[in-house]
Amino acid sequence: MRTIHVKTASADYPVHVGYDFLARFGSHLRKIAGKGAPKLFVLTSPEIWSLWGKQFQASLPAGNSFSVLFLPPGEQHKRFSQVERLATELSAAGADRSSLLIAFGGGIIGDIGGFLAAIYMRGIDYIQMPTTLLAQVDSSVGGKTGVNLSTGKNLVGSFHHPRAVFADVGILKTLPPRELRAGLFESIKAGIIRDPGLFRFLERNRDAILAGDPTALNRVVSSSVAMKAEVVGIDERESGLRMILNFGHTIGHAIEAATGYKKLLHGEAIAWGMLAALHISRSRAMIAEKDAARIESIIHAYGPLPRFRARVPALLEAAGRDKKNKAGTRRFVLTTGIGKSIVVENVTDTEMISAIEWTLREAAR
Amino acid sequence: MRTIHVKTASADYPVHVGYDFLARFGSHLRKIAGKGAPKLFVLTSPEIWSLWGKQFQASLPAGNSFSVLFLPPGEQHKRFSQVERLATELSAAGADRSSLLIAFGGGIIGDIGGFLAAIYMRGIDYIQMPTTLLAQVDSSVGGKTGVNLSTGKNLVGSFHHPRAVFADVGILKTLPPRELRAGLFESIKAGIIRDPGLFRFLERNRDAILAGDPTALNRVVSSSVAMKAEVVGIDERESGLRMILNFGHTIGHAIEAATGYKKLLHGEAIAWGMLAALHISRSRAMIAEKDAARIESIIHAYGPLPRFRARVPALLEAAGRDKKNKAGTRRFVLTTGIGKSIVVENVTDTEMISAIEWTLREAAR
Ligand SMILES: NC(=O)c1ccc[n+]([C@@H]2O[C@H](COP(=O)([O-])OP(=O)(O)OC[C@H]3O[C@@H](n4cnc5c(N)ncnc54)[C@H](O)[C@@H]3O)[C@@H](O)[C@H]2O)c1
Ligand SMILES: NC(=O)c1ccc[n+]([C@@H]2O[C@H](COP(=O)([O-])OP(=O)(O)OC[C@H]3O[C@@H](n4cnc5c(N)ncnc54)[C@H](O)[C@@H]3O)[C@@H](O)[C@H]2O)c1
Ligand SMILES: [Zn+2]
Ligand SMILES: [Zn+2]
Repeated sequence: MRTIHVKTASADYPVHVGYDFLARFGSHLRKIAGKGAPKLFVLTSPEIWSLWGKQFQASLPAGNSFSVLFLPPGEQHKRFSQVERLATELSAAGADRSSLLIAFGGGIIGDIGGFLAAIYMRGIDYIQMPTTLLAQVDSSVGGKTGVNLSTGKNLVGSFHHPRAVFADVGILKTLPPRELRAGLFESIKAGIIRDPGLFRFLERNRDAILAGDPTALNRVVSSSVAMKAEVVGIDERESGLRMILNFGHTIGHAIEAATGYKKLLHGEAIAWGMLAALHISRSRAMIAEKDAARIESIIHAYGPLPRFRARVPALLEAAGRDKKNKAGTRRFVLTTGIGKSIVVENVTDTEMISAIEWTLREAAR
Repeated sequence: MRTIHVKTASADYPVHVGYDFLARFGSHLRKIAGKGAPKLFVLTSPEIWSLWGKQFQASLPAGNSFSVLFLPPGEQHKRFSQVERLATELSAAGADRSSLLIAFGGGIIGDIGGFLAAIYMRGIDYIQMPTTLLAQVDSSVGGKTGVNLSTGKNLVGSFHHPRAVFADVGILKTLPPRELRAGLFESIKAGIIRDPGLFRFLERNRDAILAGDPTALNRVVSSSVAMKAEVVGIDERESGLRMILNFGHTIGHAIEAATGYKKLLHGEAIAWGMLAALHISRSRAMIAEKDAARIESIIHAYGPLPRFRARVPALLEAAGRDKKNKAGTRRFVLTTGIGKSIVVENVTDTEMISAIEWTLREAAR
């Protein structure tokens, strides 16, 4: 088990990465709770609970009771109405300010659970137990929580850090392979923007990783988390460095929106978005061709990327609406080599259109 | 105009109290916005806007455009569904992270506006322009924001401080007299728990205050705000001193709940709750009879308090559910003299029942 510490202005908490520690979860929990005996609430989905609920339960010391709240799977449930229902259930079950919520699931459970914890009685403690690769390497770390509006994804939310994160790669055994691959694109992103060692590891151990080898996954998850923890520690509120985490996300988000969030998983859309961003780096000649080729080929190695169709103006417009834009300027993350990235504000419409057109051609092949 | 500064671990902002400065609001706003030109959004109610919208608009420098969002009046609208609608309107109108929201109304507008600002894109700036006495002396200061659930009031929310508060007592001219009186009970509370000078002022200037005299109201509002600002500055998250602000609120909230939030305004229920708390102080002989009598008579002087009926077990149960209770203990604020209060955890069921029974008898007369 490796423990990475997230240290920001507002929080300081451990991210435990490893395998087979679900069984020892109860003792960790006792340490976190300290002398208090908080009421425990677990937010999960019916599917995850039926796969892992028994082991979760067995890991708790006898007599440690808890209530389970359920969220049905699917992005369409990451909404206010579910948060309201869950908050009402918490209050009906007697949750108070000292209660502890455990978000046990993928990124959707984590985002909605974190938001619920952020606002229930103006904030209670919570723990992330991410069960997808995406949630383990990305969404469970950094304190961003939230839900969607009809006008866009993650448009409301809070910064609310968990008290601890427990990422057991053993839980990924039951994850559908396509979900595993999609999540790995966020690790590939981590390698591209800041960690050449991770990038190399992903290049060289593709087969073991995709086969779900726990040692390999452990390395991938812990390095990805370490990269994100470092960046978030330097810039918690995304006023500078943290923006590099959005590499591939400007056009990636636009692709998700333009395809109605149906055709592609988030990580797959980000993979296309990274290819689009790489196209801009290349056309600016700001990256060595050797590095560009390695980036391109690792993305395809973790594919196949689903094909899709969209219209240029729709993508351009959606990319313009990106949350990261402040009062008119367009912030864009570019890579300048393996493990290197910069944030620029001078990407022109012409460059955007050319990158989008190139991507659409690739995606139609 | 008097300016009081709220300084906490997480915020530092001015509360301007005075009259006739609505006209100069535009220049203040320019100072707050600095070099940026944030998009402005005003959240208000149709009633308040029809009374004061013209003057609000006239105070802005020409060319300073803004959008108006409306919330219908009434506690039943302080709900998630309205927050979701308003957030969706913000996003459809192009609000971004640098936009500025102005909550222009009573405590409901302030609470929902503050919460909306807290979670829209994980937090945007906002300004409080409270238009009820209650909002000016209490709810606009301190950063508590939130909405109700079907299971209880203010059960979800955030701590999110405004960038500034503008409390113009001139706006109270159009406030229904009963609303004015109800709000004054929070000022009376401020005097009882921590400010004997304010208490005396309220005793001696009752007629001018109730007649809406701006100089008198100015003194009442600024002293009340100063008291709350000081307390919040010492204990932002209500782990200690801030709890004294709940004087009268344990039983007051229970009365509101037991009467379905219909019969009594918040301040009126708190007035009853203060009388109930006073009953406990008296029966413990922890307050001089002279002080107790002054407290009792000032509360009645700002009456009449509406009568109500409720059952002892219902009130006892509702008081037990109070948000301030942590894991079983009952926190209760008692006064020990004019301007003096303490938080205790040893109020027994017998004392609670006796105070509730006494209050119900008084309220039935
Ligand atoms: N907060 C952040 O910083 C952040 C960052 C990236 C993404 N996100 C959010 O994360 C969400 C996507 O998360 P996700 O990719 O984990 O999707 P998800 O939560 O929908 O999980 C994917 C699917 O896998 C199932 N599943 C989860 N764990 C499983 C397991 N161990 N075995 C079998 N099935 C399992 C789920 O039930 C679901 O059907 C999006 O809403 C996105 O906005 C947030
Ligand atoms: N956040 C906090 O710290 C805090 C503290 C105390 C109370 N509160 C909350 O405040 C709310 C009550 O606030 P309130 O008492 O201001 O009630 P309110 O907001 O409902 O306003 C009372 C009524 O007066 C009207 N009104 C407002 N200003 C007016 C004006 N200038 N002229 C004419 N009419 C006017 C409103 O339309 C409304 O009908 C409750 O929801 C309570 O929970 C919050
Ligand atoms: Zn992502
Ligand atoms: Zn109050």
